[in-house]
Amino acid sequence: MSDTPTIAIDAMGGDYGPPETVRGAVLAARSTDVSVLLVGDETEVQQALAAEDTQGLRIKVIPSDGIIVEGEHPARALRSKPKSSIAISVGLVKEHIADAFISMGSTGASMAAAVFMLGKFPGLERPTLGGPFIGLAPKTTIIDLGANVDCKPAQLLNFGALGASFQRFYLGFDTARVGLLSVGSEEGKGNRQVQDAFDLFKASGLNFVGNIEGHEIFQDKADVIVCDGFVGNVLLKFTEGLAEAAARYLAGTLGADSPAVKAISGLTEAAEHGGGPLFGINGLGIVGHGRTRGEGIAASVALAKHCMEIDLVEHMREDLATAQASAGVSGDDGEVNA
Amino acid sequence: MSDTPTIAIDAMGGDYGPPETVRGAVLAARSTDVSVLLVGDETEVQQALAAEDTQGLRIKVIPSDGIIVEGEHPARALRSKPKSSIAISVGLVKEHIADAFISMGSTGASMAAAVFMLGKFPGLERPTLGGPFIGLAPKTTIIDLGANVDCKPAQLLNFGALGASFQRFYLGFDTARVGLLSVGSEEGKGNRQVQDAFDLFKASGLNFVGNIEGHEIFQDKADVIVCDGFVGNVLLKFTEGLAEAAARYLAGTLGADSPAVKAISGLTEAAEHGGGPLFGINGLGIVGHGRTRGEGIAASVALAKHCMEIDLVEHMREDLATAQASAGVSGDDGEVNA
Repeated sequence: MSDTPTIAIDAMGGDYGPPETVRGAVLAARSTDVSVLLVGDETEVQQALAAEDTQGLRIKVIPSDGIIVEGEHPARALRSKPKSSIAISVGLVKEHIADAFISMGSTGASMAAAVFMLGKFPGLERPTLGGPFIGLAPKTTIIDLGANVDCKPAQLLNFGALGASFQRFYLGFDTARVGLLSVGSEEGKGNRQVQDAFDLFKASGLNFVGNIEGHEIFQDKADVIVCDGFVGNVLLKFTEGLAEAAARYLAGTLGADSPAVKAISGLTEAAEHGGGPLFGINGLGIVGHGRTRGEGIAASVALAKHCMEIDLVEHMREDLATAQASAGVSGDDGEVNA
Repeated sequence: MSDTPTIAIDAMGGDYGPPETVRGAVLAARSTDVSVLLVGDETEVQQALAAEDTQGLRIKVIPSDGIIVEGEHPARALRSKPKSSIAISVGLVKEHIADAFISMGSTGASMAAAVFMLGKFPGLERPTLGGPFIGLAPKTTIIDLGANVDCKPAQLLNFGALGASFQRFYLGFDTARVGLLSVGSEEGKGNRQVQDAFDLFKASGLNFVGNIEGHEIFQDKADVIVCDGFVGNVLLKFTEGLAEAAARYLAGTLGADSPAVKAISGLTEAAEHGGGPLFGINGLGIVGHGRTRGEGIAASVALAKHCMEIDLVEHMREDLATAQASAGVSGDDGEVNA
């Protein structure tokens, strides 16, 4: 591995396929000091590359065979398609040929490949996904965003520890305030899951600020807001849908050229702008929305490079172990569900 | 009881107290053919009435003693304050002196008083709250909005049946499409609660359209969207917080006079505009947000009158029984949690 970071991009992932992923890779190689490995069907990728100006860029094509799409059972698909673009991409990280992988394809497949090939942090049942996604609360991490539903309280604690660590090392919050998303602010409010998690959070050594209600997400009361992936995923998609509907409505009312339409779109489109790191795996992987465009892929490459530079994975593993030890949980045994 | 509907208003309920509830009562009595009973501290209510022009209006003051505030344990507070404004208001319905009660005070206390004094539908564990609350989806009922958390699948079915009935009789949807809020559209996606509820919904005779994802709330795929009250309450409050934050942001960017600010506020402020009926009690009660202003109280009076005219309570009781019989559940035994 040279000193220049090498990033493997799943060229077959995402809704727009190689023309867009390759465009993103070219943008990234031009704007960031990285080597890019484009993993995909050789013919398709070379075709897409031919349409771009790649002179002087460090881009290499790594052939793969097969694609795992959204909706396939991740583990089964990985077994039946061991040379799929996502499997090869993650394998490059495992073999230390790449420093990170990026995929806008099936999140479940990325998670499964990462767990099987790279392994997860000690005491963690499954990786998790979280991050800021609301333009009006751009530095507030919501975690989990859908990777884990039916979470046990100890899993919520893990999300809190990983989110706080991300917030600390990635966004520079020294002691990120961690809250539990609930239906009332007082201790004792919430469903049983949240009520049980409350005590664990109090004992965790995290900077726990208690329950956060839905509207308080916008009131800067916590930097990390923890929820079950069912709730997080509903919120994430609700925000996307609301943004689209609001932009359409304002365009209809005030005209498509209205500055308000642009303002509203800019506030909420973060969800489609590149990906976020998979938290809890022994390696660096960035996953994102299938609708991510080339610019978002280039942003993900820059994100991967930055995460490497700050040694995010190592820091998060340490912070998780510390929080688990403080709360007296040796790791979660939560029942999970893709 | 005369032919003119008589509505009891909890004058002590809500964040602004008698000056605002009384103003709302006067607005209602002036614009709607109703008699209003204002229940509250006699001195305070008379004082507020003195500031209004009540000539020719059918408004009467019914004295009460004590207030139950948000955060008090509803059942305990009702026992210790049997003459509180909410207890007297609901009691007027029980005694057939009023046709409906309205309170913007503690929702928990209204629910408890209604259950104790009026009783609930057969086979229903607790009443539920639901309705449209998103300006961008103004005819889509989301249910439950926070009255019930930790719901069993049979409770979700009850919400679906009651929501469909409301949609049918109140909004005129002949066969309301009922969906389950989830994290994926295919059967089998979701947490265990939703997965288990799926089969009940299929067997219920409701016009069940399957799972609805967060963004699909805005895509007119279902008229009634069923969720656990934990999720519904987070969504309701999230929408309120988002609306406030978006309006502030647009005012800062485009100026407070921008038509966009007005448009965005109008789209989302429904949550604070009056109340909605408590579903599942043997009587008519309208509850709403503490921040409801006089105009919202007047709107709630008109809503109560309309619900009486269409015999909403009776229809909902019948529809619930039908759905329960079809799905083979004799009523829910869900564990619930205020």
